[in-house]
Amino acid sequence: MTLEQGPTETERDAPHPMSIPRPGHPVTLRDVAEVAGVSVATVSLVVNNKKDARIGVDARKRVRDAIRDLGYRPNALAKTLASGSSRFIGLVADAIATTPFAGQIIHGAQDEAWKHGYVLLVANTEGNELAETDAISMMLEHKVRGILYSTWFHRATAVPPALHETDFVLVNCYSPEFDTRAVVPDEVEGGRTATNILIRRGHQRIAFINTTTPAPARDGRLRGYREALETAGLVYDPELVFDAAPDQEGGYDTVEALLAHGVTAVFCHNDRVAMGVYDGLRRRGLSIPDDMAVVGFDNQEVIAAHLRPPLSTVALPHYELGAAGVRLLLGIDRSDENALIKIDCPAVERDSVDVMQG
Amino acid sequence: MTLEQGPTETERDAPHPMSIPRPGHPVTLRDVAEVAGVSVATVSLVVNNKKDARIGVDARKRVRDAIRDLGYRPNALAKTLASGSSRFIGLVADAIATTPFAGQIIHGAQDEAWKHGYVLLVANTEGNELAETDAISMMLEHKVRGILYSTWFHRATAVPPALHETDFVLVNCYSPEFDTRAVVPDEVEGGRTATNILIRRGHQRIAFINTTTPAPARDGRLRGYREALETAGLVYDPELVFDAAPDQEGGYDTVEALLAHGVTAVFCHNDRVAMGVYDGLRRRGLSIPDDMAVVGFDNQEVIAAHLRPPLSTVALPHYELGAAGVRLLLGIDRSDENALIKIDCPAVERDSVDVMQG
Repeated sequence: MTLEQGPTETERDAPHPMSIPRPGHPVTLRDVAEVAGVSVATVSLVVNNKKDARIGVDARKRVRDAIRDLGYRPNALAKTLASGSSRFIGLVADAIATTPFAGQIIHGAQDEAWKHGYVLLVANTEGNELAETDAISMMLEHKVRGILYSTWFHRATAVPPALHETDFVLVNCYSPEFDTRAVVPDEVEGGRTATNILIRRGHQRIAFINTTTPAPARDGRLRGYREALETAGLVYDPELVFDAAPDQEGGYDTVEALLAHGVTAVFCHNDRVAMGVYDGLRRRGLSIPDDMAVVGFDNQEVIAAHLRPPLSTVALPHYELGAAGVRLLLGIDRSDENALIKIDCPAVERDSVDVMQG
Repeated sequence: MTLEQGPTETERDAPHPMSIPRPGHPVTLRDVAEVAGVSVATVSLVVNNKKDARIGVDARKRVRDAIRDLGYRPNALAKTLASGSSRFIGLVADAIATTPFAGQIIHGAQDEAWKHGYVLLVANTEGNELAETDAISMMLEHKVRGILYSTWFHRATAVPPALHETDFVLVNCYSPEFDTRAVVPDEVEGGRTATNILIRRGHQRIAFINTTTPAPARDGRLRGYREALETAGLVYDPELVFDAAPDQEGGYDTVEALLAHGVTAVFCHNDRVAMGVYDGLRRRGLSIPDDMAVVGFDNQEVIAAHLRPPLSTVALPHYELGAAGVRLLLGIDRSDENALIKIDCPAVERDSVDVMQG
């Protein structure tokens, strides 16, 4: 091809010069109408997918081509106003985005929201009451379809009155009056799962390092531990339940007592406690799992997957909590108005327990 | 007060019965107008804060009271459409919300956005190209003021073409052509800061465990390490630079070599590597900081603050990256169109280095 040649077939089909996107100069319906050689009203009918509108096949194709070539973006806000129903779901979080932990709640909620054509408005309030009030106001002013109100750890919560102005679901928290819909982890089942990992390896003297912090995790996991022992025909011995700060230091400080009680296995309230137990055992020259089998809780990847040996644990179902919250809000999962939905905590087996025999 | 009594002063001032919030039955301008005894147009003028509108002090007060009593929420979407400018800022993130790490980017961006009356639309794409395209389309259709495009670790990135349809700033990443605005951590300065923590304690044989992963963090921190040594009049010895996987295993496996080279201090590429070095030293009965001083990088709280002893490290400025991104986008911080803004990485001193003398 020489420079003197006229436009080729391809060049004539090339996008209109206006298709180069310019910030602040969005492509309008009028631009599309001009390029397609139809009226603005016709473009609007095509954009809004009015099936019964009488538009010729040819004109409809020209509009579609112009939309593609110009890179026209429909205005979602205008559509929301016109239809009277918004495509936003709000997610109010106390500290989920900033805790190295519960971000999967956002991820699960977002995936499920997108699946149904909704967009997530996330507000992280750092537990600050004023920020929370502002966040909920902002969401209501954006006419959200509903709000997920969530906490970074499983706990009881007061329900902010403004939430009652829309549909809402509590996620990873619940009202002490049990008068609202909530999705929470099944702590009892999780405690059973953790304990069963050890029972299945033949351990009989299994300790439980519980947290000193009052919370559903404290009561639920203890109940699960006890139920698992009793189901297996093992004696529940309160002397083997230790209370400790729910962190590395708490675990480290409990190792002495574990050894004094002659336990062969320990279920730790969380992975950080297990990390402290590792340090305490190692300091005494003891090895995991030969001298003691260890199981954690939470599956905090950055710790659990990289301890030596990698830690067997039970996962908090954060992703599923967020997704289930959206399904409840949109009425895809049906529930009573005050239902407390419990989500399973699955086992994540690594190498801190004995190899299973047979 | 007996049941027979008429309404008290307080009861007569009580909110209109309609003020009980009902999901799906939002309070309208018309409701406010009725209670205030004015026209809908008057309410609209008060709501939109038209200063020059001729409305009596008394009527204005009645409208304000009715708004408060009824719990009227202005429609932010309608306001956006009417004014032609939106109050949304988009934040596209590859995996920020789900990595136990960079969530502070969201937090910083949100705080700064709110400060200026903007709301953050967050989309986590998990690095999936289709999700990313959808996220950017969604944001453009919501007529965002602009988009922050961010990555969970500092790296070069291709710029999705659709970003050019609006204002945008890259956060924690940059275009290899350096042709767009970007905010990134100052890796060189961070490397100097980490090394200086050890130099100030009088160490002369300081090792650096670098990552094997090519990244600005790899080149930048090495350059900072080298500059700090040279500024202090110490010899830069390439034999004291070790490459390792940037995790616990990488650190653990390097301890043998550190000891063979007789170093008294080590700067680790990140906190996870430092955690592995702790394990390796402990296994050999060595103690920190007496036998070896250790400095990390990242300040990954759940690890750094809870190792035994707590780890001295250098913080990645995630919060500040998000906040600075918003300030650039809104033109509050001025910059060239292709400016690469570097943010300082501050030292976080704990107990894994010797106590400073004098």
